[in-house]
Amino acid sequence: MSPSRVDIKPRVVVLGTPKFIGDDYLAEFSKEFDYAVLDAANRKETQEKLPAMIAEHGPIDAFIVRMGTPPYEPFDADLLSSLVPGCRIIASASAGFNEFDVEWMTSRGIWFCNTVDAVAEATADMACFLTLAVVRDTYRAERGARGGSWKAGVAPSRDPSGMTLGIVGMGSIGKYLARKAAAFNMRIKYHNRRRLPPAEEARLGAEYCASLHELLGASDVVSLNCPLNDQTTGLMSTAEFAAMREGAFLVNTARGAVVDEAALIEALESGKVARAGLDVFCNEPDINEYFKMSDKVICQPHMGGLTESAFRKAERECFENVRALFKTGRPVAPVNEVAKVAVKETSG
Amino acid sequence: MSPSRVDIKPRVVVLGTPKFIGDDYLAEFSKEFDYAVLDAANRKETQEKLPAMIAEHGPIDAFIVRMGTPPYEPFDADLLSSLVPGCRIIASASAGFNEFDVEWMTSRGIWFCNTVDAVAEATADMACFLTLAVVRDTYRAERGARGGSWKAGVAPSRDPSGMTLGIVGMGSIGKYLARKAAAFNMRIKYHNRRRLPPAEEARLGAEYCASLHELLGASDVVSLNCPLNDQTTGLMSTAEFAAMREGAFLVNTARGAVVDEAALIEALESGKVARAGLDVFCNEPDINEYFKMSDKVICQPHMGGLTESAFRKAERECFENVRALFKTGRPVAPVNEVAKVAVKETSG
Repeated sequence: MSPSRVDIKPRVVVLGTPKFIGDDYLAEFSKEFDYAVLDAANRKETQEKLPAMIAEHGPIDAFIVRMGTPPYEPFDADLLSSLVPGCRIIASASAGFNEFDVEWMTSRGIWFCNTVDAVAEATADMACFLTLAVVRDTYRAERGARGGSWKAGVAPSRDPSGMTLGIVGMGSIGKYLARKAAAFNMRIKYHNRRRLPPAEEARLGAEYCASLHELLGASDVVSLNCPLNDQTTGLMSTAEFAAMREGAFLVNTARGAVVDEAALIEALESGKVARAGLDVFCNEPDINEYFKMSDKVICQPHMGGLTESAFRKAERECFENVRALFKTGRPVAPVNEVAKVAVKETSG
Repeated sequence: MSPSRVDIKPRVVVLGTPKFIGDDYLAEFSKEFDYAVLDAANRKETQEKLPAMIAEHGPIDAFIVRMGTPPYEPFDADLLSSLVPGCRIIASASAGFNEFDVEWMTSRGIWFCNTVDAVAEATADMACFLTLAVVRDTYRAERGARGGSWKAGVAPSRDPSGMTLGIVGMGSIGKYLARKAAAFNMRIKYHNRRRLPPAEEARLGAEYCASLHELLGASDVVSLNCPLNDQTTGLMSTAEFAAMREGAFLVNTARGAVVDEAALIEALESGKVARAGLDVFCNEPDINEYFKMSDKVICQPHMGGLTESAFRKAERECFENVRALFKTGRPVAPVNEVAKVAVKETSG
C-alpha cells in the first residue's frame, strides 16, 4: 500500500479502547479507515491528550465515544473544540445523550449519533428477570433458603401466566419485552404517546390503552419503558399508584426519576403495590435506604443495558455510523441534521 | 331435588380443604357429586377421622389428596384401609408418587392418578428465572446495589442471547422451558432417553444430542429437567462437570440428588461452572452451608411448582380424573390399571 493510498483513509479516533467490538471487526474496519485509540481515562486526560494527538497526527475525521461516559462528561466545546476544524462526526455508544452538546456540534457541521437499538434487548431481558422475580417473590425465597426458614411464608407464590403486563412506553425495549413476556402467557397492554400501527400491534399481541390510568387499572404488572424527559419525570406518583390494581407489581428499567419514590414507598407500605423490581433509582448509586432494606423490592444496580452483547452491538453501531457517513454522505442514525458538504471518500 | 336423586351422586372426599380450585368449579362439581372435606391436618388425625366419617356417612367413592403430602405420608393400607370396600379412585395433586402404595391400591381395585402437567409450566418459569439470574449475575448485583458497592465487579454481565441451552430430560417441563428460552434467543439442545419425533423437535426448535456428555460439551447453560430415579441419581458428577464448557452455567429445578453436590462445589470453586441456579438440594431444607454462603449460587427453596396456578391446575386435575372415571369408566391419567367393573353413574 503506497503512502498516498494510506493518506486518503479517513482518520477515526476512539476515546479509550473498544473492548467488545471484536478483533475481526476492527481488522476489517482498519482496511478502510486510519483507526487509532486515544488513551484517556477521564475528562482531564482527554483535554490534554486530544489536542496533542491532533497536533502530532493531524485532524480527526470521526470521533467515537464508548459506553461509560461519566468520567468525561459533559461532551461540549470545552472538551472537544480541538476536533474543529476537520471532524465530520461524533458517534456515541450510549442511547441517552443529555451530556452531549449537540447544538454546538451542529453549529460546527459535526454529525452526532447515539445508539438506538444496542441496549434494547438486554434491557428487556432485565425487565423480564425483574417481572419473574417480583411475581415469584424470589428475593424473600432466597433469604429463606439461605437463612434456614426455607419456604415459610413464601409458598405458594403468584405466577405470571394469565397476568396482564402493562408496558408504559412502546419503543424498542417495550417491543422486545412484549414478545418475551408472551412466552410466559402474559396478556400485553401498552400506553404510548403514539399508538402503533394495527399490524405492529398484531405482531406484538399488544392492546393499546389511550390513557396511562386506563393501563394502570388493567395491569397486574406495570413495566416502565419510556425515556426520561420533562413529560415523564415523576410520571408514576400518588395518583398513578392509586390507579393501579390492589397488590399489583411495578418494574422499572427506565430511569429512576420516572417514579416519585416517596409515593412508591407509600404504595409498597400500604400493600397497593405488592412488590417492585427496580434496576434504576433516583440519585444512583446512593439509593434510598428503604430500597436497600426492603424485602418487597428487587434491586439491581442499573444493569439493564450493561451486557457484553449490548456493548458489542453499541460499539459496532458507532463504527457503522462512521462507515455510512464516509460511504454515503449520511450516518445510519443521526440525532442532528448537518448540511451536506463534500467529504473524503473511502476506498472501500 | 329428591332424596333418591341425591343418593345416586358418587361421594367424593378431599383430604383438607382445596384452596385454589375456585368456588365456581366446586359449585359446578357439587351438582354431580356428593362432595365433602375431611378436616385432617396430618396422618394421626386422618387415621382417626377417616374411619369415623365413613361410619357416619357411608362409603367414599373417590378420595382426593391435595399438594403438601409430607404430614400424611406414606399413603398406604395403614392410613387408607377404611376406604375399602367402596373406593374406586384415589387422585393425588402431586406429580411424584413415591409415597403412595400403588400396588396395594391396585390389589383393592382402586385407580390411582397423579397429576401430569400441573406444575410443569411453573417449574419451567423457575428454570427461566434461574437462567436469567445466573447469566446476568443478579445475586452479586443485588448485593452491590444494597451494599453500596453498586455495580463494581459485575458490569458488564453475560447475556442469554446467542447462548446454547442444554436441556437434560425433555418431558413436559423441558418442553415448556424450550419454548420460553427461545424468547431469549437461546439455541436449544436436549438429551433424553428417547428422541422426540421430528415434528416435535421442529416445533420446539430443539436439537437432539445422543449422549449426555455431547450435550454438556455443547451448552453454555445446562438445565436439569429429568425425574429422580436410579438412573439419574448423581447423574451430574465429576466427569460430567469436566465435560462442560469452561465457565458454563448449571440450573437445577429437578431434584437435588440428580447432582453430586461435592462435585458441583468443586466445579464452582475451580471456575469450570461460573454460577449455579438451584431450586433443589440434597437434604432439603438443611442445605449444604456452601450454597448458603456462596455468591456463585442462586438459591430458591424448592419453589418450582409451588405457584397458585400450578395448585389450581393440580387440584382441578384431581377432580377431572374423578369426573372422568364416573363418566367414562376410566380416569384421564391413571398410574395403574384396574379391571373394569360397574360403577355408579353420575347424572351429569
